[in-house]
Amino acid sequence: MSLQISAKEEMVEKFLDSSARGDLATVTALLSGAPSLINRRGDNEWTALMLAARNGHHDVVKDLLLRGCDKSLVNSSSQTAYDIAKFWGHKHISTLLTPVDDRGQQIPPGFELRTQEHYFGRETLDRLSVKRTDTEWLEAKQKNPDSVYLLFSNLIPMVSNQPGDGEEGETKLYLLRYEAVQDLLQKPETVLIFLGVKRRNISSSLTDVNVEELPAWFAISTDEDTAELLKRCPEKNCCFPEKAFRDLLKLSEEDAGVVAQARSVLAWHSRYGFCPTCGSGTKMEEGGYKRSCLNPDCRSLNGVHNTSYPRVDPVVIMLVVHPDGNHCLLGRKKIFPAGLFSCLAGFIEPGETIEDAVRREVDEESSVKVGAVQYVSCQPWPMPSNLMIGCLAVATSTDIRVDKNEIEEARWFSRQEMIDALYRKAAPVLTVPPRQTIAHQLIKHWIGVSSNL
Amino acid sequence: MSLQISAKEEMVEKFLDSSARGDLATVTALLSGAPSLINRRGDNEWTALMLAARNGHHDVVKDLLLRGCDKSLVNSSSQTAYDIAKFWGHKHISTLLTPVDDRGQQIPPGFELRTQEHYFGRETLDRLSVKRTDTEWLEAKQKNPDSVYLLFSNLIPMVSNQPGDGEEGETKLYLLRYEAVQDLLQKPETVLIFLGVKRRNISSSLTDVNVEELPAWFAISTDEDTAELLKRCPEKNCCFPEKAFRDLLKLSEEDAGVVAQARSVLAWHSRYGFCPTCGSGTKMEEGGYKRSCLNPDCRSLNGVHNTSYPRVDPVVIMLVVHPDGNHCLLGRKKIFPAGLFSCLAGFIEPGETIEDAVRREVDEESSVKVGAVQYVSCQPWPMPSNLMIGCLAVATSTDIRVDKNEIEEARWFSRQEMIDALYRKAAPVLTVPPRQTIAHQLIKHWIGVSSNL
Repeated sequence: MSLQISAKEEMVEKFLDSSARGDLATVTALLSGAPSLINRRGDNEWTALMLAARNGHHDVVKDLLLRGCDKSLVNSSSQTAYDIAKFWGHKHISTLLTPVDDRGQQIPPGFELRTQEHYFGRETLDRLSVKRTDTEWLEAKQKNPDSVYLLFSNLIPMVSNQPGDGEEGETKLYLLRYEAVQDLLQKPETVLIFLGVKRRNISSSLTDVNVEELPAWFAISTDEDTAELLKRCPEKNCCFPEKAFRDLLKLSEEDAGVVAQARSVLAWHSRYGFCPTCGSGTKMEEGGYKRSCLNPDCRSLNGVHNTSYPRVDPVVIMLVVHPDGNHCLLGRKKIFPAGLFSCLAGFIEPGETIEDAVRREVDEESSVKVGAVQYVSCQPWPMPSNLMIGCLAVATSTDIRVDKNEIEEARWFSRQEMIDALYRKAAPVLTVPPRQTIAHQLIKHWIGVSSNL
Repeated sequence: MSLQISAKEEMVEKFLDSSARGDLATVTALLSGAPSLINRRGDNEWTALMLAARNGHHDVVKDLLLRGCDKSLVNSSSQTAYDIAKFWGHKHISTLLTPVDDRGQQIPPGFELRTQEHYFGRETLDRLSVKRTDTEWLEAKQKNPDSVYLLFSNLIPMVSNQPGDGEEGETKLYLLRYEAVQDLLQKPETVLIFLGVKRRNISSSLTDVNVEELPAWFAISTDEDTAELLKRCPEKNCCFPEKAFRDLLKLSEEDAGVVAQARSVLAWHSRYGFCPTCGSGTKMEEGGYKRSCLNPDCRSLNGVHNTSYPRVDPVVIMLVVHPDGNHCLLGRKKIFPAGLFSCLAGFIEPGETIEDAVRREVDEESSVKVGAVQYVSCQPWPMPSNLMIGCLAVATSTDIRVDKNEIEEARWFSRQEMIDALYRKAAPVLTVPPRQTIAHQLIKHWIGVSSNL
């Protein structure tokens, strides 16, 4: 058995190696015997396509594509084969690896590839918001044995940890069924949210399926003792992670997308139980997406007001580029681990545009003046309910004077220093936030964009 | 006297006419005698530069630019000379009129002109947020005779109507001084907001000025009888406009920018007087940008929570382009005036990206599926505190099925129909929202972008 695995591993290694060297004959010979090799991964999650793209082997890339390899895969630095070809300047290869948007659509002329997907950003579920007011349907779905429940305690979801292939193992949302949570649903302090139905795979032939018949997903928030709650889980490796921030970043993209939605709405319920207009209690409505004041004389009941709906707080986060085009501005807060620097960021204020919020925040935190601002992509960040709007910004001044209340230090870093930090070269002068953050992705985006200019 | 005005008017007409015809000799002769002609406006607010750009007169455009004419001016359709040259395909002229961002900076390579300014979007004031916690400074500024107060009743600002040159006259924010509002400031129910200081003109030599010494602007909200409040105003043409929405759109860009900030924050105070976490009363802090719970045991006092800060509600508003590239999707609500169609729009939900919110809203309202999404620009909309995030979206399906709860009708309109509606050709098949709205500007943006493809 172990010998067999070893032989397979050897074949994967040979396949990846021949792709990296541009040995098309060996690549095709191996694939003819074992087609499943095509998307296998080696060190740092690199695929054959990435290795061939890295080293400029146009013929190998073309052949792998013709055989249907998955060009959307990313390596451990979140790079696709396209990113790699672009970064290393192999234009004839990046052209082959035409960018597609996050639904697999070709990007039409005039549109750039900007709908980059971030962690917490995947729409795993179809929210089916039209059903939020259909009480009958919602109640039937609650009792449906196909429905799925996520259990939250103190805004942390119950997860299971699988040993898995990787070093760290795999953290998954633990999915419960109606039977396991039936008693919790009876308790008045339980908060129940309708999250949606599992999104159809639009590239499949399932488009005729009635979405209302797909399994419904719910999130439950409860104050019950967590040790008691864990008894509902037959598996021994279930838990409510203690280091929520760190552990939530270990979920798959699919699970993270669900958590972004569920945690934001639950956090709103945990902080907005009273009517801000009159101070009375409120009741939950519309599948958990509305709270209405219980005081019949309250002004909030006349017309539609934002006091009844969940909050989403827009935040600007920006990579400020030096006027020389070769340096970027990063800052660090006192609470950051030693050596960690990140993009500047701040809440958008009432009556302010995204672009002016970028200019104001950069000025306030570092005294650096900003001219042009360009939106890049955004990321939901459910701590508790931020929408991180990521921008590149061009500085028109360079002197740094830090507002010590906001950040401890801000500095210009060279492009090379950023490449070293991003790809963890030996002894980088700084560390950057992990790949799950939009700060990390903005830095990578800048490196990619600026190397093309 | 009237003869003299007439002679002046005739000269303006001659100047504009010779620019439109490309008669460089007459243009330069007139300007030598009367340099102030250069930025004068004719029908529909067109300048000489726009007329020359429209008709492709490269030499006139070049001469006007050399003489320092203002290329940032817009006509009554909000077009700059650059927009006009681009629209009519005069590439050698649009090159002359290089795009600059909203601070007059040249757009660096790789960046497009996307920081378009919208109504309500101008940062007229420097918010100087660092002074919000400086109670001593704020109190001194309140009593300073240079400080400016805006008076709001029921979220409507006091304005003065000037007869003015145009047909409709001019509506201006009415600025009061400390003396005129001193008594109101003593009343406990009065809400006072620090708005900032008048922004320095960054192209002037005033950069050495200490911003803290510039005149401070405040907004006051009061429940006093409006007839009594108007007595504070020595001018007879002051009022609190009754049709707030319509009348607020008559302000200058400068005034609209101040109103966007002030009205959003005041609307928050009017609806968020109680702590949403425990239902207790709250007190105002930090110059009007924070409300703290008065209950010393409230959870909201531990750590920083969004319950204490003003809300900004991000909204997506999108022009959906047909897969043929020549039609766009607009919808109308029942409450719209007959014939009016606008862009689809909706609130971004917790845990959702801008791009996915666009896809979900378009699907929910019209059943049309969207692929690529591109951010264009954004607009603060202080009714009460929305941030309108404007996008172009490319449809991947074309069948329309309207959700009657959301909109009454949705239709594909051709590019020509949109040009006719935008520039008010005879008998357009639809009308579009006014130029002050981002919907109007998104449609114009699409016409401009698509004519270049």
